[in-house]
Amino acid sequence: MALLVMKFGGSSVSDAAAMSRVARRVVAVREAGDQVAVVVSAMGDTTDELLDLAAQVAPGVPPEREMDMLLSAGERMSMALLAMAVQQLGVPARSFTGWMAGMRTDTAHGSARLLDVQPARVRRALDEGSVAIVAGFQGISTDDDVTTLGRGGSDTTAVALAAALDADVCEIYTDVDGLYTADPRIVPSARRVTRLTIEETLEMAAHGAKILHLRAVEYARRFNVPLHVRSSFSDQEGTRILTGRPLTEDTMEEPIISGIAHDRSLGKVTAVGIPDRPGAAAAVVGAVARAGVSVDMIVQNVSTSDAATSDISFTIPEADGRTTVAAVRALQDEMGFADVLYTSHVGKLSLIGAGMRSNPSVASRLFAALADAGVNIEMISTSEIRISVICDQVDLEDAVRAVHTAFELDADEDAVVYGGTGR
Amino acid sequence: MALLVMKFGGSSVSDAAAMSRVARRVVAVREAGDQVAVVVSAMGDTTDELLDLAAQVAPGVPPEREMDMLLSAGERMSMALLAMAVQQLGVPARSFTGWMAGMRTDTAHGSARLLDVQPARVRRALDEGSVAIVAGFQGISTDDDVTTLGRGGSDTTAVALAAALDADVCEIYTDVDGLYTADPRIVPSARRVTRLTIEETLEMAAHGAKILHLRAVEYARRFNVPLHVRSSFSDQEGTRILTGRPLTEDTMEEPIISGIAHDRSLGKVTAVGIPDRPGAAAAVVGAVARAGVSVDMIVQNVSTSDAATSDISFTIPEADGRTTVAAVRALQDEMGFADVLYTSHVGKLSLIGAGMRSNPSVASRLFAALADAGVNIEMISTSEIRISVICDQVDLEDAVRAVHTAFELDADEDAVVYGGTGR
Repeated sequence: MALLVMKFGGSSVSDAAAMSRVARRVVAVREAGDQVAVVVSAMGDTTDELLDLAAQVAPGVPPEREMDMLLSAGERMSMALLAMAVQQLGVPARSFTGWMAGMRTDTAHGSARLLDVQPARVRRALDEGSVAIVAGFQGISTDDDVTTLGRGGSDTTAVALAAALDADVCEIYTDVDGLYTADPRIVPSARRVTRLTIEETLEMAAHGAKILHLRAVEYARRFNVPLHVRSSFSDQEGTRILTGRPLTEDTMEEPIISGIAHDRSLGKVTAVGIPDRPGAAAAVVGAVARAGVSVDMIVQNVSTSDAATSDISFTIPEADGRTTVAAVRALQDEMGFADVLYTSHVGKLSLIGAGMRSNPSVASRLFAALADAGVNIEMISTSEIRISVICDQVDLEDAVRAVHTAFELDADEDAVVYGGTGR
Repeated sequence: MALLVMKFGGSSVSDAAAMSRVARRVVAVREAGDQVAVVVSAMGDTTDELLDLAAQVAPGVPPEREMDMLLSAGERMSMALLAMAVQQLGVPARSFTGWMAGMRTDTAHGSARLLDVQPARVRRALDEGSVAIVAGFQGISTDDDVTTLGRGGSDTTAVALAAALDADVCEIYTDVDGLYTADPRIVPSARRVTRLTIEETLEMAAHGAKILHLRAVEYARRFNVPLHVRSSFSDQEGTRILTGRPLTEDTMEEPIISGIAHDRSLGKVTAVGIPDRPGAAAAVVGAVARAGVSVDMIVQNVSTSDAATSDISFTIPEADGRTTVAAVRALQDEMGFADVLYTSHVGKLSLIGAGMRSNPSVASRLFAALADAGVNIEMISTSEIRISVICDQVDLEDAVRAVHTAFELDADEDAVVYGGTGR
């Protein structure tokens, strides 16, 4: 008898019919003899509707504690309804809030971090033969207040629950039937990847792939939770993500490249004409870090404006653009540089694959493909299993398609694409 | 500095604008220097929408534990939004679920009874200068499951919280501006009653007045909680309900009659032609009680069908009609009575007033008024401060108006009537 954690996002439980479909799926697994704990997000539009109500009542920045209290109602509704739908099929089910499921967090409302997971009540329900249904995205703080986990919260709940229950697998159901070699909305010939290492998945999530949230993948890697990404709308096998397994001959036969991630959410800041002296780059990047902004890629080169000076460019989350520019501008007089430029028209393409460790020609093949497609590379960064390039955002989709073809990732048939994604 | 509990029903918080109006009212009290704990129901239609979703997902009888989990989301949303609206006005506010507010109940999902109220967190929030906002209608069971309190639940939460906090008053805000001498929808000239004893209020609630729920009034009497019924749509003084105060000369000057309640929710069962022998009435009523049905009024008299036998008639909640008739019919062969009749076309009029204790002419004046109006009295019951009569339901409104006039209760101006009522 295996123990499965099955996580369903908002688009999988958008209405009563979807809820019943999920219930049938859960019941089929339970009736096959396995134990099932389900983690569920708020129904389709619930979160947006609650945010809209909050904006009407408290325009501006609503208080975070109360926002968490409000938003946590969303999962409460969906989990109770799903428990009803499962019982309707003759299988006992019990729903549990974050508090009841032992999801203890810090007090950072809106983006709380899990401190401890003690799912004793969930375990008891499973041992009694019930399907346990747990509210995703929420917890209870050390102050006994309701918290939410922020972006990717429900995935994180599922992985944390799977780790605490020592589940055999954590199945993440979503609106696509697995991870693809590229976003099928951009590359219709993208192929589903049947297996990925957790490191590759981490690079994919960190560099723009939206199916799995980085935080949940990090949690899965830390606690060795095997993930399985599947569609709630089909019976496709999905993508299995392997953890804690050394590379064997078997995995060495995997393709060199497992996928291409892309990211449109970055901005690029350039400090122009910095007088050449040691520590200039450190001063700029240090100021940005002190402003609480994560720097992604950095390039320093001889200035186009004056050969005796250099330019420093770096990318940051677009949402932090204003903060970053202010932090850099504050250094301008002291450091004596000419100007601060900002653009949000950047795109990042990342080529990811565990196989590139042993294949030195990947970079040159990538650059050649981009050159053939007429895409200008502005910045480059690499890890052991990833190469990322920054280009103009208008070139990004062409770049993804060109690289996909160059690395022979195209499938014979086009992929099927469903609706939006949940939280 | 006084401590007020203010309870707002669903129609008082039906949308963002209503929520902001309630917030202004709460803030005005807080800024005048008093401590305020607010109890709030689910917004307007929320409960109906949740019930509708449950019916779609689980047609038939949905599981009660999950229904409570689902419905409790309603108050969670309204209390969080109200806390935001109060903070928007610059006053700190914190919301608390039934669990957080220490509302411990038994495990009877859907109609749980409060066992213990320990609002330590509410007290702490008040002492810190915050407005405390508590979810009505819900609690946490001895099994640590979410429960709801059933009909009148939010009123009961408010009274229980007021008792536990030793509040100076529990203000019940609703969509009418107090208790009236009769339902203003039937008697436009009904007058607002400025003061009522808790006993009178109990009789009113027990016999059909819908503003305050019987259970909450019983709780208020037991714990000596002063109630104040007011409109959330006006600044009218409302109705003050006095508890634990002996009748003084001051109250002796109150009018003899404080109001007329009416009730259309009853059914009448008649066992016809019961052979006259001791214990016949006890046997019939006993069988009904064993079926879990509360008998309201009972009349036994010589049968119209056969003078050697008697008829027993009694009233019960209309919802229990089928159960009751079955229970009585099961006795038919054994007891040898002729037939069992049932009608839901009955109305009950109750005349209530602490002053009637010392005024023996009330009953005859009532009967005369009904006779003049052509209303036939089918059954009569009395308490020390109430006389109730059963009549045909088609005559009920005429009866209420005639009695209202006969006891000189009519006002010069018509009352203002607002929308529906919350739970």
